[in-house]
Order: sequence, then structure tokens, then C-alpha cells
Amino acid sequence: MTNQRKPRGPYRKSAERRERILQAAYEAIDEHGERASLQDIADRVGVTQPALTYYFPTRDDLLLAVLERRDTLGKQVAGAGGEGGTFVDGMAASARHTTDHPGLAKLYVTLSAAATDPGSPAHSYFTERYGGLAAEVTRDFEEGQRTGLIRADEPAGHLARAVLAVLDGLQIQWMHDPTVDIAAIAETFTRMLAPPAE
Amino acid sequence: MTNQRKPRGPYRKSAERRERILQAAYEAIDEHGERASLQDIADRVGVTQPALTYYFPTRDDLLLAVLERRDTLGKQVAGAGGEGGTFVDGMAASARHTTDHPGLAKLYVTLSAAATDPGSPAHSYFTERYGGLAAEVTRDFEEGQRTGLIRADEPAGHLARAVLAVLDGLQIQWMHDPTVDIAAIAETFTRMLAPPAE
Repeated sequence: MTNQRKPRGPYRKSAERRERILQAAYEAIDEHGERASLQDIADRVGVTQPALTYYFPTRDDLLLAVLERRDTLGKQVAGAGGEGGTFVDGMAASARHTTDHPGLAKLYVTLSAAATDPGSPAHSYFTERYGGLAAEVTRDFEEGQRTGLIRADEPAGHLARAVLAVLDGLQIQWMHDPTVDIAAIAETFTRMLAPPAE
Repeated sequence: MTNQRKPRGPYRKSAERRERILQAAYEAIDEHGERASLQDIADRVGVTQPALTYYFPTRDDLLLAVLERRDTLGKQVAGAGGEGGTFVDGMAASARHTTDHPGLAKLYVTLSAAATDPGSPAHSYFTERYGGLAAEVTRDFEEGQRTGLIRADEPAGHLARAVLAVLDGLQIQWMHDPTVDIAAIAETFTRMLAPPAE
């Protein structure tokens, strides 16, 4: 809004470059995990490291933007079944998104653990992320309770927080033992969200 | 077994000193979190730091022993209802054990995240921990499925892994937002473990 008078061309160019850097960072971390270097990311886009820090002043800023993109893509994956897909399909798809992208999963687990410290620069990011996701899933579940898809004998807000907890917890278990079939366990859990009596 | 011929006195004294160091480390981390220094721990027991490293060669060895003790106490807390207590009581008690001991919870979250790296010294510890706990809870749930306390329409092994995941995930959410009532959400989850139809 404050840039309304700015010429469209340069602004768009800047937004595009930011987008290309973010996409490169996402791919570098997907491939190499947190070991991905800023130099590698800058090289992929063909910019210098200072240019990179113009868009993302600190490494944390860039990493959190990558996690935000992971959330966005994760939601798209979870909702890919569209109107025809069930919530069970979506949650299993989320779990598979974790196992298909271990570098990104590792980044998420490490940063969210480090950010439990209220002094951490990423603390408010995660607090808002969990709050936002919980509110979003709660609204979905309230709707599901009205239409009979989701059990109505427990508060929607509790069920929503439990979903987020299960996905986070399964992700950690899988990183400690990749033989655990977390997509199947996620499916079990989603069936537990159905109304208890037929 | 290999020490059967060793005099009982010195052996017992050594075991007692190890126990006192471990208890001091547990209390120091409970109070100060990971910031607790080895010097503080040594001071509490009245030993030197080298004496401390005789029992726990690395800081990681000591921290993992503290987490082991936390698991043991957590199980006692969860089972405190005894024969009369329900699983619901136990799981809520586990969640409250987390919120009552934030320093220990933080240590757990940080170490388990760091240990997702297979090169980490704590990796095998957590892999075995999750495997062992999952096996234990699975056995309990198989028994519960036979007696009708636990829903039998899903594999006991999936339910067991889901329980561990929910507790881990709620712990992380609580550290990012202490206003989340994770004990109440844990109670919701345990009721979801009951057979679906009356």
C-alpha cells in the first residue's frame, strides 16, 4: 500500500528476485538440509551474498521464509484431494510430504525446538504459526462437527491441537526411525476423529 | 555380573555417588534448564568436575541419563493412579509433568531434535527410547483391546505411536504458548482411544 506510487516494473522485478531466492533456498535445503550454504543458494540464483541479505537480512529470516513456504505447499498437498478428497487422505498426504522432504522436515524440527526459547528470534514466528494453524483447523472441524464428519463429543479446538501435535510428533519419530510408517499412523488418527457411534 | 567378586562396600559407594550426581543434575536442569553448568552440578554434590566426568564422561552422557530419569519418573506419574486410575488420568498427568518441569521439557525437546541427525551421539538413544516406549504401550493397548478398554478397530501399534506423538507434539505447542491447556487436550485424546460404539 505504501508503494502504490512506485513504478510497477522495478517493484515487480524485486518481488520476482525475492521469489527466486526463496525458491532456490527451498530447493537447496530440500536437497542438503540445514547444511545448505548461503553461497550455494546465491549461486543458484546468480546473485551475490550481499544481494541475498538485501531480501533476507539474516539466515533465520531466510530459513523461516522457507518453513512458511513448506507450510503453504503442505496445505496444498493436504487439500489436493479437493472436494472429493477426505481429511484422512489429506493427513496421510501431509505425513508423506514429511518423508518425501527430509531436509525440510529436519529444518522444521530443529528450528521449532530452538525457538521454544522465548529469547529466540524465531519464537514469535512459531507461536503465531501454531496459533494460526490451530484456529484454521478448529474452524474446519467446527464445520465438520455440524455436518457430521467430525466427532462432536470433544471440543473442536482440542481435536485441532491434537492433529497438529500428532503430525509434529510422528515427524520426530520418523526421523529417529525411518521404518515407522507415519502415513499409516496418521490415517489411523484421522479415523479416530470420526463420530464414535454409527 | 563381571563385578561379582568386587567388594560390595566400594561398589555400593560408587553407585551411590553416581546416583547423587544424577539426582543433582536432574534438579539443576529442572531449575535452570540447559543453562545448568557442570560446575553447579558438581558443587551440589560436593565433588570436583573431574570426579563428575568419571561417572559421566561427556555432557551428553549426563544429559541423556537425566532424560532417562525423567522418563522413569514420568511413567511413575502416569501410573500413579495405580489399578484404580484410568489411562486418561495417566496421560493428563504426563502432560502436567511436562508443564510442571519446563527445564526438563526443554532439554528433551532440544536433544531429541538435535538427535534426529544420525551422526549425533544421542541418535541411537532416542531411536531405542521411542522403539522401547512404543513396544511397551503397544503391549498395554493389546491387553486393553482384549478387555474392551481400548478401541480394537485400529492396530494397537498405531495407537501407541500416536499417543507418544501427541504427547511430544503438545509439549512443543505448550513451549511456544504456555496458555494452551495441553493436559485437557491429552484427556480428549485418551477418550478417543476408547471403543467407538457403546
